[in-house]
Amino acid sequence: MFNKVLVANRGEIALRIIRACRELGVPSVAVYSEADVDSMHVQLADESVCIGGGPSKESYLKPDRIIAAAEVTGADAIHPGYGFLSENARFAEICGSCDIKFIGPSADVIRRMGDKNTARATALENGVPVTPGSDGILRDVAHGLEVAAQVGYPVMIKATAGGGGRGMRPAMHEGEFEEMFLAASREAEACFNNGECYIEKLVLNPHHVEFQVFGDTHGNYIHLGERDCSMQRRNQKIIEECPSPLLTPELRERMGVASQKLVESIGYENAGTIEYLVDEAAENFYFMEMNTRIQVEHPITEEVMGCELIKEQIRVAAGLPLSHHVLETQPRGHSIECRINAEDPYNNFAPSPGEIKLWYTPGGKGVRVDTHVYSGYTVPPYYDSMIAKLIVTAATREICIARMKRALSEFKVEGIKTTIPFQEEIIDHPDFKNGDYDIAWVAKYLEEREG
Amino acid sequence: MFNKVLVANRGEIALRIIRACRELGVPSVAVYSEADVDSMHVQLADESVCIGGGPSKESYLKPDRIIAAAEVTGADAIHPGYGFLSENARFAEICGSCDIKFIGPSADVIRRMGDKNTARATALENGVPVTPGSDGILRDVAHGLEVAAQVGYPVMIKATAGGGGRGMRPAMHEGEFEEMFLAASREAEACFNNGECYIEKLVLNPHHVEFQVFGDTHGNYIHLGERDCSMQRRNQKIIEECPSPLLTPELRERMGVASQKLVESIGYENAGTIEYLVDEAAENFYFMEMNTRIQVEHPITEEVMGCELIKEQIRVAAGLPLSHHVLETQPRGHSIECRINAEDPYNNFAPSPGEIKLWYTPGGKGVRVDTHVYSGYTVPPYYDSMIAKLIVTAATREICIARMKRALSEFKVEGIKTTIPFQEEIIDHPDFKNGDYDIAWVAKYLEEREG
Repeated sequence: MFNKVLVANRGEIALRIIRACRELGVPSVAVYSEADVDSMHVQLADESVCIGGGPSKESYLKPDRIIAAAEVTGADAIHPGYGFLSENARFAEICGSCDIKFIGPSADVIRRMGDKNTARATALENGVPVTPGSDGILRDVAHGLEVAAQVGYPVMIKATAGGGGRGMRPAMHEGEFEEMFLAASREAEACFNNGECYIEKLVLNPHHVEFQVFGDTHGNYIHLGERDCSMQRRNQKIIEECPSPLLTPELRERMGVASQKLVESIGYENAGTIEYLVDEAAENFYFMEMNTRIQVEHPITEEVMGCELIKEQIRVAAGLPLSHHVLETQPRGHSIECRINAEDPYNNFAPSPGEIKLWYTPGGKGVRVDTHVYSGYTVPPYYDSMIAKLIVTAATREICIARMKRALSEFKVEGIKTTIPFQEEIIDHPDFKNGDYDIAWVAKYLEEREG
Repeated sequence: MFNKVLVANRGEIALRIIRACRELGVPSVAVYSEADVDSMHVQLADESVCIGGGPSKESYLKPDRIIAAAEVTGADAIHPGYGFLSENARFAEICGSCDIKFIGPSADVIRRMGDKNTARATALENGVPVTPGSDGILRDVAHGLEVAAQVGYPVMIKATAGGGGRGMRPAMHEGEFEEMFLAASREAEACFNNGECYIEKLVLNPHHVEFQVFGDTHGNYIHLGERDCSMQRRNQKIIEECPSPLLTPELRERMGVASQKLVESIGYENAGTIEYLVDEAAENFYFMEMNTRIQVEHPITEEVMGCELIKEQIRVAAGLPLSHHVLETQPRGHSIECRINAEDPYNNFAPSPGEIKLWYTPGGKGVRVDTHVYSGYTVPPYYDSMIAKLIVTAATREICIARMKRALSEFKVEGIKTTIPFQEEIIDHPDFKNGDYDIAWVAKYLEEREG
């Protein structure tokens, strides 16, 4: 096991990793920006190091500062969490060259699966279906128009370096292709320093269903079931559930086998997630991308599968095999997560940073709250607006929905706006209760509500 | 289902029941004393009624006030929680005569199992082993001395109306029998208005292991595994765990069968707990008593069995069968509960009421906190000192202990003293880690620490 783990992240995921380290008996080091000095992750770590200013580019995105913090504190491993440097192959390489274990897959695998086009090719090679699309990146508009005509409209234009919904544009017909192609490319250039795009056929009204996978260095390659993340606003997940209300047992089995085979074939080490689109009829699934890191919504898998993904990440990175209870686990019950964001759902989800005057979290049976905030904490303006994850678990989906409704009603936040009232609307909606929603549901719902 | 449920209790269990009602879609009514106006259970109920002064005798122990509150609010069922009127057969009868469903077994069964001597006889009749002892109540000291000589010292003198450790005294040898007999009788007279006592052989160094049982009105009589409650101070449980580290699979099976048979034979309706002593060698078990109500420590069973006992209580009382997922459940993982009391563990556990200046509860994976208190709440001096239950669950006992240690270290309370530092000592003790403790462990540990 490691002597000390540095957590190269902030917020709830930093706290999550620190708690896992503590339970493993491994000391942890928090790094933090000047804006995050009051975050609970700093208070609960064994040591902490300030690595720069509030904006991420001055702190959490600076490999040199993070490596220096690890060297100063004697940390021999770095957990990158999600976002920031978690899928940065170069950072993983730097860690390796400094004799610090990067808790995640190898730089080569990050690079291979991080490039969406190569990832698609890898999926195809291993028999995992992908949406029809361009064979590689598009040279220019003319090339794009040619490929789109072959694939058939509507198509989705995607940045090969994209993520979090950036660098993505749909083209519903030939007439808008050029405009959308250029917009996607410009955004990708601005966000990722790489404007290269490719095309995929647009699957109408699909579900976003992802499989949690894991590999260790002892020949174990497994999947731990799926999560349905179709409840999205502008490609940002709002509510996730496990298992998916859409999948039939037969489709779940097929997707699970494909996912397991893919990680085995690429010798994948550590936790990963394979994202798929599933068509309305729950007949076909298409590989979208693979995230070579822990996901925000990993807790719903933990709850249903009775395991702990962060600890397994640390174990596997230290050369241990996946725990017996993980290899042998069976799903039990249903779990739903709401991402609680500091945003105003009645003002176009405008960010709502500022001081939290009152923070009362729900409790009791089947309620888990992962958060780094508390009464009196000030939400800084620099980061992602998620301030808590509310995870609720019960024996059945019906009970789970009733519990989420109850938990949301108990959640009291004063001083800032949060997405809680919006999530209460969704949870109580007949479409959600019936599992009758796809990735376009939120947009339609908001349009109707406002129209 | 009921139209409205009145919760005839206070504190965390009242909140627990109110949450269950909310998830079932049944409105709830809180009753409260003048001292409990700020309790979270009052704030989260749909309606609330003040029923009298702070001392329990002026409010929570007054059947007429509670019935009046139910009638005023139109509640057609009463959940009694634990303690107070929960095992009061007369109160169950009064509810029935007012056409209000008492959520628990019938008054006859409460009476039969509440009288410890009759309960012993019932157990014996149904093949459940009991410790050798007096055939009935003791007429006087002379009779007691005679029976004790037959049973063999050491013996335990117990009040037939006893509970919570009151009206109990051990007599290690003949010389101290009279003194102990009179003390037990006096205490029972004072506490329960009934000084009648009986004798049981004292099993040395035993574990306290109890089985959760349940019966419905559709012919289902089940047990849901055991809880080990041996970590006690003066007969008050401090830490409980599920499953027991002592039982062998063979003994667990035997005890489960005996427990199931007992509830079936008496046609038991609703939740109950059968308490046993298990000898050091984990070879023999002896019926101690049956509690005809929900137990404080019920959550560890909920966590391991993936079910909800309070909701099942309400369902069964409404004439529904036990849920399918309860009838079919299998145990998964390990769960430990710490009862967080407002007491000073370094001053002989003196009660520590007063204002809570800071209340920060632990969170994250596998951590559940059931509590009615919050920052700024004032703990009144009138009641049981328990202010929260910290319940921690994990895949294995080892991980569960590491998690409890982590959770206790995160729990921050300022303004009053709590038992948290004492529970941290126990959780970290090699004897606890090895499962090597019996009901006398705490007393010995405290003696050594102070000596």
